Amino acid sequence: MSGRVYLVGAGPGDPELLTLKALRLLRTAGAVLHDDLVAPEILKLIPPTVQVHNVGKRCGKKNVSQEEIHFLMIALAQTGMQVVRLKSGDPMIFGRAGEEIEALRHADVSYEIVPGITSALGAAAAAQIPLTHRAASSAVVLITAHQADGSEAANWNKLAGSGATLVIYMPGRDYTDIASKLKSARLATDTPCAIIARATKPDQQTYFTTVSRLHRAPKLQAPSLLIVGEVVRKGDPAVLLPDSTAQLLDRSATPQPAFINSPFQPAPEEPLA
Amino acid sequence: MSGRVYLVGAGPGDPELLTLKALRLLRTAGAVLHDDLVAPEILKLIPPTVQVHNVGKRCGKKNVSQEEIHFLMIALAQTGMQVVRLKSGDPMIFGRAGEEIEALRHADVSYEIVPGITSALGAAAAAQIPLTHRAASSAVVLITAHQADGSEAANWNKLAGSGATLVIYMPGRDYTDIASKLKSARLATDTPCAIIARATKPDQQTYFTTVSRLHRAPKLQAPSLLIVGEVVRKGDPAVLLPDSTAQLLDRSATPQPAFINSPFQPAPEEPLA
Repeated sequence: MSGRVYLVGAGPGDPELLTLKALRLLRTAGAVLHDDLVAPEILKLIPPTVQVHNVGKRCGKKNVSQEEIHFLMIALAQTGMQVVRLKSGDPMIFGRAGEEIEALRHADVSYEIVPGITSALGAAAAAQIPLTHRAASSAVVLITAHQADGSEAANWNKLAGSGATLVIYMPGRDYTDIASKLKSARLATDTPCAIIARATKPDQQTYFTTVSRLHRAPKLQAPSLLIVGEVVRKGDPAVLLPDSTAQLLDRSATPQPAFINSPFQPAPEEPLA
Repeated sequence: MSGRVYLVGAGPGDPELLTLKALRLLRTAGAVLHDDLVAPEILKLIPPTVQVHNVGKRCGKKNVSQEEIHFLMIALAQTGMQVVRLKSGDPMIFGRAGEEIEALRHADVSYEIVPGITSALGAAAAAQIPLTHRAASSAVVLITAHQADGSEAANWNKLAGSGATLVIYMPGRDYTDIASKLKSARLATDTPCAIIARATKPDQQTYFTTVSRLHRAPKLQAPSLLIVGEVVRKGDPAVLLPDSTAQLLDRSATPQPAFINSPFQPAPEEPLA
């Protein structure tokens, strides 16, 4: 009997945001190869009889190379196993699924892609920011903070200056570079930004600020995501501190301190610099 | 007891691509208000004791106005009910969730957003097109074919000419207008395009073509989605007819007829013009 590889999206973190299909596959797989970012609560859903391999990065450093992942995935499938390659978010967005698909095709191993909730959607839901809005934005750009080596560099200026909502994946913890890229793209300095850390998890945090103050944003826990654009103004008023809400909602108001808050663990206001 | 509204994404069509949370909410809701695009197989999962209201558009014409949807949603929640507002795909992407959220806030009704698999991810998985790829594209643009009335028009030229993968929602069935917009944005005429119709459903179809031949694309069944960019070249070779595969994979080759195929119901090759 020939095996099969399922490239499966695990969603943004909340185990309830797994798809029914992902859960069924995790429960019936012979082996699961997962990234580090997949939440422990999701890994707990895998029966103890299933082989589980962590093939993720730690601190940006791979324990296992991309080639080793390909080798393991193919070798397991060739023993006749159903193999789940579990990736956080969706496999087709910043997940290197393209390279894994090419390896599977080359090895003539049967495979299937099972989409997952990408982080942008998890973060938007968590912070209540509609990514499109008839009165604010009719397009969304999904981009990373740093271009991958050797890839065609997406034109940051064109994309950032288009009026579309920007969702920046893997922004890191130092926003100085992103802030200057956004300014180079001629975004208004009062364009609102939201950093959503650990979206859909119990310790999720949302930080609202503007392009001009972005470089002063606190270092929230990874993984995080940055949403930039007028739609951020429509974000959850409940997570804004009372004296800051009006500032964010009214563009004409005088700039005020940035603020941080979480619907789960209210954090103190950032001290004035 | 006060009610609550859940704005829930139903995903691209396959009922197994519902999230666990969406299924739980559908099973325990007092009422469900759904759009027309939500698949009948998903509506069948709702217990018979639940009030179900179709508040969708038919042939682009609303049976129920946006204001009536707000009124019904709020009135039901105010009777103490758990109300699920079920939208195809994800509520925060081209779903008018922003307006519904504003109405709920204004009426002081408690609500929560539950993300779903947006069509772009369903279509990418179905056609095996990675939306980002280290060797082809490091950004994704989600956009509609026609700008919504009164919204800030996203700059098509900037977005289309940025080198990012374009995912065009609601492209309609006449591609002439989109094709000329893409040419105006100076996309190479041999840039590959994929139309994915009814993605993740049993009668799904994928049609591969190029910008120069897009205007000749057949009228596939709604809903459909158009993916434009170099990543399309990495799509599923199994759904390409053998004599066309090489053409799509090799940019230097002479243009050949566009082709259509489905992994489920193989369709005949488009006749030569």
